[in-house]
Amino acid sequence: MEIPVLFLKKNHERRLRAGHLWVYSNEVDTVRSPLKDFQPGEQVALMDHEEKWLAWAYINPNSLICARIVSRQQDHLLDQSLIVHRIKVALGLRDRIYKQPFYRLLFAESDGTPGLVVDRFGKYLSVQITTAGMEAQKDAIIGALNKVVHPSGILLRNDVAVREQEGLERYVEVASGKIPEQVQLSEDDCNFETSLFEGQKTGWFYDQASNRRRLLPWVEGKRVLDLFSYAGAWGVSAAKAGASSVTCVDSSAKALELVTRNAALNNQSDKVNTLRQDAFSALKELKHAGERFDIVLVDPPAFIKRKKDLKEGSLAYRRINEAAISVLRKDGLLVSSSCSYHMDEQRLLQTLQQASRHRDRSMQLVERGQQGPDHPVHPAIEETAYLKTFYLRVLPSF
Amino acid sequence: MEIPVLFLKKNHERRLRAGHLWVYSNEVDTVRSPLKDFQPGEQVALMDHEEKWLAWAYINPNSLICARIVSRQQDHLLDQSLIVHRIKVALGLRDRIYKQPFYRLLFAESDGTPGLVVDRFGKYLSVQITTAGMEAQKDAIIGALNKVVHPSGILLRNDVAVREQEGLERYVEVASGKIPEQVQLSEDDCNFETSLFEGQKTGWFYDQASNRRRLLPWVEGKRVLDLFSYAGAWGVSAAKAGASSVTCVDSSAKALELVTRNAALNNQSDKVNTLRQDAFSALKELKHAGERFDIVLVDPPAFIKRKKDLKEGSLAYRRINEAAISVLRKDGLLVSSSCSYHMDEQRLLQTLQQASRHRDRSMQLVERGQQGPDHPVHPAIEETAYLKTFYLRVLPSF
Repeated sequence: MEIPVLFLKKNHERRLRAGHLWVYSNEVDTVRSPLKDFQPGEQVALMDHEEKWLAWAYINPNSLICARIVSRQQDHLLDQSLIVHRIKVALGLRDRIYKQPFYRLLFAESDGTPGLVVDRFGKYLSVQITTAGMEAQKDAIIGALNKVVHPSGILLRNDVAVREQEGLERYVEVASGKIPEQVQLSEDDCNFETSLFEGQKTGWFYDQASNRRRLLPWVEGKRVLDLFSYAGAWGVSAAKAGASSVTCVDSSAKALELVTRNAALNNQSDKVNTLRQDAFSALKELKHAGERFDIVLVDPPAFIKRKKDLKEGSLAYRRINEAAISVLRKDGLLVSSSCSYHMDEQRLLQTLQQASRHRDRSMQLVERGQQGPDHPVHPAIEETAYLKTFYLRVLPSF
Repeated sequence: MEIPVLFLKKNHERRLRAGHLWVYSNEVDTVRSPLKDFQPGEQVALMDHEEKWLAWAYINPNSLICARIVSRQQDHLLDQSLIVHRIKVALGLRDRIYKQPFYRLLFAESDGTPGLVVDRFGKYLSVQITTAGMEAQKDAIIGALNKVVHPSGILLRNDVAVREQEGLERYVEVASGKIPEQVQLSEDDCNFETSLFEGQKTGWFYDQASNRRRLLPWVEGKRVLDLFSYAGAWGVSAAKAGASSVTCVDSSAKALELVTRNAALNNQSDKVNTLRQDAFSALKELKHAGERFDIVLVDPPAFIKRKKDLKEGSLAYRRINEAAISVLRKDGLLVSSSCSYHMDEQRLLQTLQQASRHRDRSMQLVERGQQGPDHPVHPAIEETAYLKTFYLRVLPSF
């Protein structure tokens, strides 16, 4: 099989040699390698202007990121055998620091598998393929996962919007074995249930697990408000670690059903209550009713999905955090997250600082987290660092 | 007592209203309030262009940062009573999350005490005053600390170079009670000794304590190299947590004496050895001798002290980390810190990425730390966030 060549314009190999994995369509030498000659998802040999071989990549001529590097070893194309290798290397990291098999097993570019995410729930795997190049490897992926991990079931959660940009249809499919309606997972000594079929994203937000652990030393005897609670991972673990009471707020009835079940699973039903409401209006009512909390958790969905939403999204972060501060007791703790890549860390901190000054408070940043080690950051690809969680002590102005 | 007024130029109150505490000399309206009329260290009422009262501050007309805000409450000037209040608020944070009295008790601007740092070693306090404004409060500080903390001894470690910029002499002085030659401290279940008189900075680097804890899950059975080890806090705690062997490298014989004593204190003498050498040449020799490690810790003194050292300092960070990578085993962990404020997080990560590409490796950033919660960051003052520690898995290139 002849593998077609994708030529880069002069000097556009530099970023790639420095470690990046993406080729933008405007970096392609379309005279020597016209994009219309390529099929979405096929593999290409990436060469620089002087015809020096750089890497294997897969291509999507219709996408802005038109190629992604999958291997810098000339004797290792992307195939089942390479995916097996990537899974083993990824397991090497997870086995080392996770006592239980509940984590993100493959985090796309950061684990050398661009366009492929795999979350592990013990015997079950939830898989998300986001590019045409990885979709073309679907059988190889399922084969490799079965070979290395021996799961009882593999679910393809290929229902994410970003697939449309790659010209892929959206679907959910049990690709191998069986997947139960509800699956169990653990974070340290907390046990949870979720649905891989209907849960948000791949079913669980493992990316916040280490940040939830960072909260635990702060919760003893405290009254906690958990906004955008989803299945209650933050709130229930805080209750189990000694919080005196926890209120989980979410606008989804299904999410709050999960909260109730997860509170029961951990014998925390007496401490955890739920409030079905939009977080903004919940804060307004709680404030009006004079309810105050020692700790408020703000972990919203991405308010900024595209760069052009930056201004409006920043305002939303400021508003929700200002409202959160207004229901904090004196010497309270605000735990505020953003999973918007475009909201960088410095900007989020400035936004929080503005919110606190507007309420005439002073803040101390006492702790800070990013996504957990099962979502490693690729140091050359800024986009792989998307999650920020700040722990701020909120005091009267000084 | 009449308190003189320091007037700001038009619009220069904005940054202060947004939370910052510093007034630069070029922001002062020197027509209405000539700087030569002020005594170094005296207290002033800060007013904006329209004579609106902003805050109490102390002044040093000879310093670039010519005034620092100490209170935004008009009825609370900087005096012993305000310092007592600041100490109590600071203790509120430390008492909440430290099980033992070993931490930074006051972290200057971040705790509302610009120019004043206090480290606590159980019954003993090590104090550092860096501004004329705080030097003027010396008796009030000692009085307040005795009143709230009841220490057996207070040492003034006023021997830091930055005092010269404020026109202050450098000295070390027991200001109250007695200070023994060696003091004990604990980090979790590790016990250490250090000298408050002769130790680096105030005697101990509490700022890395939480980052040392973050390392522990990674060390079981591993061979560790601890560069710039100082008293062995990283290395000895790694040994105690299960590392198979630890080599501590430092160019100071006194530091290595402390390592040996601290290893013994924790029953780790059989696992911890020392190497008195400059870190750069130690790495060269270890590499040449074929010595390889699973984990290399790089925690150097600030290579960049002033902004103009940025380029040269960055190169030093790159060189030391590249050399560290060259003695790492396959699938090793590089734990790399910088306490240079001017080396921001993004730049340090880029520098590390360059070092790894130059050695033909790929890296995964799996964990990240800043200074611990006893060194809170002031969200409006970037300079208070100075410490970065990256935990990078180093792999063959992919």
